[in-house]
Amino acid sequence: MMTNHKDRSRTVNIDIQKDLFGANENAAKLNADIFKKHDIVAIDIMGSVGTGKTQLIESLCEHLQDKYRILMLAGDLATTIDADRVASHGVDTLQINTGTACHLDARMVRVALQKVNLADYQVVFIENVGNLICPAGYSLGVDKKVVVVSITEGPYMIRKHPLTIKHADIVIINKIDLTNVLEFDIDALEADIREVDATIPVFRVSSKTGEGIDKLIEALNL
Amino acid sequence: MMTNHKDRSRTVNIDIQKDLFGANENAAKLNADIFKKHDIVAIDIMGSVGTGKTQLIESLCEHLQDKYRILMLAGDLATTIDADRVASHGVDTLQINTGTACHLDARMVRVALQKVNLADYQVVFIENVGNLICPAGYSLGVDKKVVVVSITEGPYMIRKHPLTIKHADIVIINKIDLTNVLEFDIDALEADIREVDATIPVFRVSSKTGEGIDKLIEALNL
Repeated sequence: MMTNHKDRSRTVNIDIQKDLFGANENAAKLNADIFKKHDIVAIDIMGSVGTGKTQLIESLCEHLQDKYRILMLAGDLATTIDADRVASHGVDTLQINTGTACHLDARMVRVALQKVNLADYQVVFIENVGNLICPAGYSLGVDKKVVVVSITEGPYMIRKHPLTIKHADIVIINKIDLTNVLEFDIDALEADIREVDATIPVFRVSSKTGEGIDKLIEALNL
Repeated sequence: MMTNHKDRSRTVNIDIQKDLFGANENAAKLNADIFKKHDIVAIDIMGSVGTGKTQLIESLCEHLQDKYRILMLAGDLATTIDADRVASHGVDTLQINTGTACHLDARMVRVALQKVNLADYQVVFIENVGNLICPAGYSLGVDKKVVVVSITEGPYMIRKHPLTIKHADIVIINKIDLTNVLEFDIDALEADIREVDATIPVFRVSSKTGEGIDKLIEALNL
């Protein structure tokens, strides 16, 4: 039937909401105590696949590994690709394969930390599982939660993930080296971040070229 | 302490696996029966945020809306951005806001379908929540599960999501208009797909320019 239905389109809304986060909080507090006891600065790095989380950690390690003893925890469904990349810089790594779980939780992190002697480390970078939805509400007991967004993710990604921004301490806009090529409006993206949180620190970074890494390191108190 | 630790780096593996999918299967079978009863072709479109799922559906609707009566179901955490975009083409839409849930499930889809008269439609496009982890194991009762990957997601995204490919019927490599600009090796990405599933149909598409859409439509039997 050849008809045009433009005259009668409509949109219906259905809300389905759950709270899955409460049970994780006590385990996160335990982790925070453990980090504090060992005088460790722990950073949780969240972001979708392909936003450059691993490259960012590699860049941070390059800048910091002569100053601090660093441990990297990598959360991934099945592979060791990210941990291997960071390990190639001579940084100790712990790989947490989550199977089908789309985020790390505080218990997974504690189980992982029991495999090492924490007295050996001063900084722990935790690369969360690659997506921006699940990790948002799960505290790991870290000092700072960093969200990495990439300008390759399109213009709507902040508006679609307000919760993730609300739970974060720092937002990194990554891959700024591609700004011209993608004709991307970074100011509009930053305005979306400001809509959710007017005061959260936002850093424009290229983990590829290293642009902006120094200022980020200052903000991490490292 | 200024020391270099490259000599003693190591990687430890921890596996944490769960199966969350069984309970969804019966609901999916019910949906399949409902679609069959109304002679509806239903397509589940999965992919990370920013891979161009919505733009792909817009392109498909432009090509198909004079031939078929189309309904679009949009899964999103909180916004109606995607449904609004498709609705602007005169296509009926149902928005499912999942709150914190990182995927649609069969029950959510059935609840949504009860809001419309299914006799009005011949094709249902379901845009799943934007990430490639959670939706993988949740059948919705559709005819075909389509995974959209984008060359902006970096080279590792297939190797990190083998399960998603295993559960899919068709893989779309999107944003091929950016291949040269990003110096991306599409053949290597397709080889990764072939490692997981040697025979799955793979289509190289630009939802922006429309390149490759015709062949995709053929593969969807539309």
